[in-house]
Amino acid sequence: MSPSPLHSCSTSSLLFRFLPFLRWLPRYPIKDWLLGDIVSGFSVGIMHLPQGLAYALLAGLPPVTGLYSSFYPVFLYFFFGTSRHNSVGPFAVISVMIGSLTESLMPSEDFLESVNGSNATVNEELRDTRRVELVATITVLTGIFQVLLGLLQFGFVVTYLSDPLVRGYTTAASVHVLISQLKNVFGVSQSEHSGPLSLFVVSIYPPEHIPSSCKLPDTNVGTLVTSIIAMVSILIVKELNHKFGAKLPMPIPIELITIIVSTGISYGVNLKEKFGVSVVGNIPSGLKPPVVPNMSYFGQVVGNAFAIAVVGYAICISLGKIFALKHGYKVDSNQELIALGLCNFLGGFFQCFAISCSMSRSLVQESTGGNSQVAGVIASLVILVTIVKIGELFRDLPKAILAAIIIVNLKGMFKQFKDLSTLWKSNKVDLLVWVVTFIATLLLNLDIGLAASVAFGLLTVIFRTQLPHYSILGRISDTDVYRDVVEYEMAQEVPGVKIFRSSSTIYFANVELYAEALKKKSGIDVDRLIEKKKKALKKLKKQQKKLEKEKHLTEVSLGDTAMTRVLPSLDNNTGSPSLPQSAGDGPGVAVIELSAGERSAPSEPTLRSLGLPQPSFSAVILDFSPVSFVDTVSIKILKNIFRDFREIEVDVFIASCPGEGDLQSHEPRASPLAHS
Amino acid sequence: MSPSPLHSCSTSSLLFRFLPFLRWLPRYPIKDWLLGDIVSGFSVGIMHLPQGLAYALLAGLPPVTGLYSSFYPVFLYFFFGTSRHNSVGPFAVISVMIGSLTESLMPSEDFLESVNGSNATVNEELRDTRRVELVATITVLTGIFQVLLGLLQFGFVVTYLSDPLVRGYTTAASVHVLISQLKNVFGVSQSEHSGPLSLFVVSIYPPEHIPSSCKLPDTNVGTLVTSIIAMVSILIVKELNHKFGAKLPMPIPIELITIIVSTGISYGVNLKEKFGVSVVGNIPSGLKPPVVPNMSYFGQVVGNAFAIAVVGYAICISLGKIFALKHGYKVDSNQELIALGLCNFLGGFFQCFAISCSMSRSLVQESTGGNSQVAGVIASLVILVTIVKIGELFRDLPKAILAAIIIVNLKGMFKQFKDLSTLWKSNKVDLLVWVVTFIATLLLNLDIGLAASVAFGLLTVIFRTQLPHYSILGRISDTDVYRDVVEYEMAQEVPGVKIFRSSSTIYFANVELYAEALKKKSGIDVDRLIEKKKKALKKLKKQQKKLEKEKHLTEVSLGDTAMTRVLPSLDNNTGSPSLPQSAGDGPGVAVIELSAGERSAPSEPTLRSLGLPQPSFSAVILDFSPVSFVDTVSIKILKNIFRDFREIEVDVFIASCPGEGDLQSHEPRASPLAHS
Repeated sequence: MSPSPLHSCSTSSLLFRFLPFLRWLPRYPIKDWLLGDIVSGFSVGIMHLPQGLAYALLAGLPPVTGLYSSFYPVFLYFFFGTSRHNSVGPFAVISVMIGSLTESLMPSEDFLESVNGSNATVNEELRDTRRVELVATITVLTGIFQVLLGLLQFGFVVTYLSDPLVRGYTTAASVHVLISQLKNVFGVSQSEHSGPLSLFVVSIYPPEHIPSSCKLPDTNVGTLVTSIIAMVSILIVKELNHKFGAKLPMPIPIELITIIVSTGISYGVNLKEKFGVSVVGNIPSGLKPPVVPNMSYFGQVVGNAFAIAVVGYAICISLGKIFALKHGYKVDSNQELIALGLCNFLGGFFQCFAISCSMSRSLVQESTGGNSQVAGVIASLVILVTIVKIGELFRDLPKAILAAIIIVNLKGMFKQFKDLSTLWKSNKVDLLVWVVTFIATLLLNLDIGLAASVAFGLLTVIFRTQLPHYSILGRISDTDVYRDVVEYEMAQEVPGVKIFRSSSTIYFANVELYAEALKKKSGIDVDRLIEKKKKALKKLKKQQKKLEKEKHLTEVSLGDTAMTRVLPSLDNNTGSPSLPQSAGDGPGVAVIELSAGERSAPSEPTLRSLGLPQPSFSAVILDFSPVSFVDTVSIKILKNIFRDFREIEVDVFIASCPGEGDLQSHEPRASPLAHS
Repeated sequence: MSPSPLHSCSTSSLLFRFLPFLRWLPRYPIKDWLLGDIVSGFSVGIMHLPQGLAYALLAGLPPVTGLYSSFYPVFLYFFFGTSRHNSVGPFAVISVMIGSLTESLMPSEDFLESVNGSNATVNEELRDTRRVELVATITVLTGIFQVLLGLLQFGFVVTYLSDPLVRGYTTAASVHVLISQLKNVFGVSQSEHSGPLSLFVVSIYPPEHIPSSCKLPDTNVGTLVTSIIAMVSILIVKELNHKFGAKLPMPIPIELITIIVSTGISYGVNLKEKFGVSVVGNIPSGLKPPVVPNMSYFGQVVGNAFAIAVVGYAICISLGKIFALKHGYKVDSNQELIALGLCNFLGGFFQCFAISCSMSRSLVQESTGGNSQVAGVIASLVILVTIVKIGELFRDLPKAILAAIIIVNLKGMFKQFKDLSTLWKSNKVDLLVWVVTFIATLLLNLDIGLAASVAFGLLTVIFRTQLPHYSILGRISDTDVYRDVVEYEMAQEVPGVKIFRSSSTIYFANVELYAEALKKKSGIDVDRLIEKKKKALKKLKKQQKKLEKEKHLTEVSLGDTAMTRVLPSLDNNTGSPSLPQSAGDGPGVAVIELSAGERSAPSEPTLRSLGLPQPSFSAVILDFSPVSFVDTVSIKILKNIFRDFREIEVDVFIASCPGEGDLQSHEPRASPLAHS
């Protein structure tokens, strides 16, 4: 093979890898799939419109950015994505993460302007411009993180976001969403707090009397009635959609109907002027040229952008995998990361906010017959038409309607509270992770809360391995099966042998417990016996010394005898581990060297000769099958175990030692450590 | 038994527990032990004197507090301690931890006073008074933490400080000590920085020209010469002590000799006035009445006090255990924590700073014949006499001599750099822990550095379990031993069965890798085969539909047939996992329910009937012996494994499943999960 075709081959395979549509589009079965994709694309596009407007509100941005975010990334995903049913675009959790940032870094109060000298009002235009600029930076940064993680094949970071963690997190996020929307439902305005505990500040003092963009400081009855009617009708129709889903060609687009009807009423009755109902306001027509994001915000938002990148990806990939499993295709998790990253990165230049996938839209896309990413393109074209032609018609849409749409969409999230009872029955530790994540996210807000939750999730692994179950194994008669003698009546200890097993691996945080449990379970007081032996040896030595002195006195004329040379050798054999010289001034954590050679010297007196009781067993076998790695602390303690048991004339063996090189021993069968 | 004797009995056992001297003192073998204890006590007391003065300097406190710290806690330990050879008292690492606090919270610059209008000098008296007050608070708080941890039996927290971590930490601490003492060696004075990266600020600009307590802004040659002579002579004599240790009745007290000689010279020549050599200054005679610590500092120092409590205890207990092992007695780790805590708590009322144990003094205490805590009492009495009678004589002792003593004592710590090569050979992960701890402690200072290191140490456990070794096991002929077929030539796969094993436990962070590795190691492309099967089934279904249509057309007059009822049942049997209804709007992480019952319906077409290749094996056995706990994520993925292999007509079994209740299965032998 010459290098040039090889080169071109690898280039094309790279092209196929990073642009998956090159692979599947030529094989697209137009006859079978196109109709389904078009129907599905329209259904999803119709959902995108109200959701985009609503989630922009959630992110604290002008509504048109929600439309942009429903167009650019959705269109781009067609080229890069590998999931055929995911509906990418604005998502509640991500939007509220962005919203908490915009409100903390650029609160409305910063844009107060004195009009006519007396009443200060917020310069909304300036505020929105600045916020769009900030969010564009976050979005680009999120995209960069996702692309980098994808290129480095670091998609596995989401494994740290375990199921209970993600569910606890999204539930807490939806509480944040709910509270942030209450002001729109009640038509009041409030100071936008952020940072830890901000949630409670908001919920304790909802109707604060501060200068605001909305002119009524107290509940606006018109707004409240509007939103309640909207919520109830959307809820009912969604329930009907759900019930008669099989019989309808596509779900009734109740959200779209609601915004159209309410916009019509709002325009006709002039709700804004007459009842002070807050409306979305001006929606500019047409697309904007790309703008390079403002680099100066990078430092402020880098942590949040990383959190958004990880959470957004985690939601997409888990959703994508469910559909892939159902329809028997594969999603490439690293390519998905790159696809999302490119959607965000490029979107950031066009005033989009960060996107993820929406479960509700994806389910519609699948159930209305969507077969491929073509459905996404159709949906994005629906939004494009809206942006160019009909978006401006929605200027009189009351914000309360959007809040109602957001809140109704939270229903599924709040159902996750049911996890509490499920997890209580199945796994208490995972329940703890759920609860801690929920509380941490509620109290510490969405960024720090996520970090704290991940740290706690990892700590549970430590806790779980730190207090394992220790057991003495016995053999089940006539088999090779060894089981815990306490749990299995059939299991009988092998005479003269103690087989010891821990349910977890051994490492620095639990190895001392391991040694203690072994000594306890062995049934004899090992330390006491060693102490007694040492005392007996000391006595013996003293007696010998006395004897020698007497001899020396009587045999003084005979000169130096061999007797004096016996003593130092006894000294070496007291079995005491000598402190290594190098530890002379250290902090007291020196590794104790085991001088095994000296101990087996034939001159050492036995327990029997010292008149001490002998243990009832002659060997200890440590079952190492759950041991997956070994650190230096474990080695040190293991050496101590070997030394202590040798002291009381018991041999220690290691069985089922993994031989992958983490441990020193490579023998396939039970092999005594440190024996040679 | 009447309640009152029971009560008195438990009271006395509590007394014995918390005041261990009640137990051992009555049995004290005066004849055998007293002489050794007195000799050892004097030797240690003589070491306490220079070390106490030096470590007070290190802690940024007036020298007399070092004497107090060498008296009160040492005396109190007699009543509470269980280690017979530990020499409690000031320790370099703890002193430098305190020193970094005094210098950051109360820098000398805060006490500048204008004298005669022109030259600003530091009001040392006020500074020292304030610093003593601050440190007393830290010490009391440290004591409270230690007593609480001891009462709650939380001595195990030190297991998180693994050997490599403690050694890396103390090495970094000794670098901090060295740098902090350079100013005394060179006789320059410098701004006292603190906080992250402070180390480099200090070492890059040592001779800063700032107003200072010492009157010379540049290197003082007299001071430098003094300290070099002192260092060399101490080093040489220590080497001799070490070499001829066996032949000397007690080590030459070179540190004491040095301070006496240098004080004499300093007084005679009047070094302070003539050469501007900095001296320790006034040492008040006699003891001071106790002072209640200032509570207002609690908030500022609570984190540092906790770090000091943990580090101090970690050093004491590891040292105590080494001696206990050597001499065959037991130290009670929780009682040690309480003992240290009470020493610190009570000491804090008497101007002491926090103490720990010193390796160098403890080794002297042991080697000079010390047998019990009585040696400590003797040593403390030596210091008491010094405080009351002769302390004031040391007012002319040059600080440079104390710096020399501190630096020489660091020798043993710096030897810990040898760990790098030892760990490189034995354990790379532990090496990483050492290096990360060292660098973190150097860069982030002693408190944050410790927290970061502990977090990193725990993370290594995650890393180690996250990328385990996966293997297919084979049987070694004529035995019951199963080994990795790749590593053992003797091991042969059992025909028709794949036995799969991971070297580590399964949990959320590695279970997806587990499933992937299983599919890969099984030798067939499971996902591809399932995809093919689904396609074939779809085709079959379509054919059936067509067939039915034709039939329907021909048999339209015959009415509804049973045929229509066949189709939905086929629909259910395509093996696709249905999305649970409750996941309707959730974040896409719903647990997939496995409807096992439907799948085994007899109507399902087999791979053979669909014309697809069959896998070469009919069963997969998962060896669960390294599995120590199971979380919900693992259960979900395990269910997927069962479903996928069922799909391709392979049965999955679990072997060696631990039966302690963490897992659902309790059968002792291989048991199929989810089969019933």
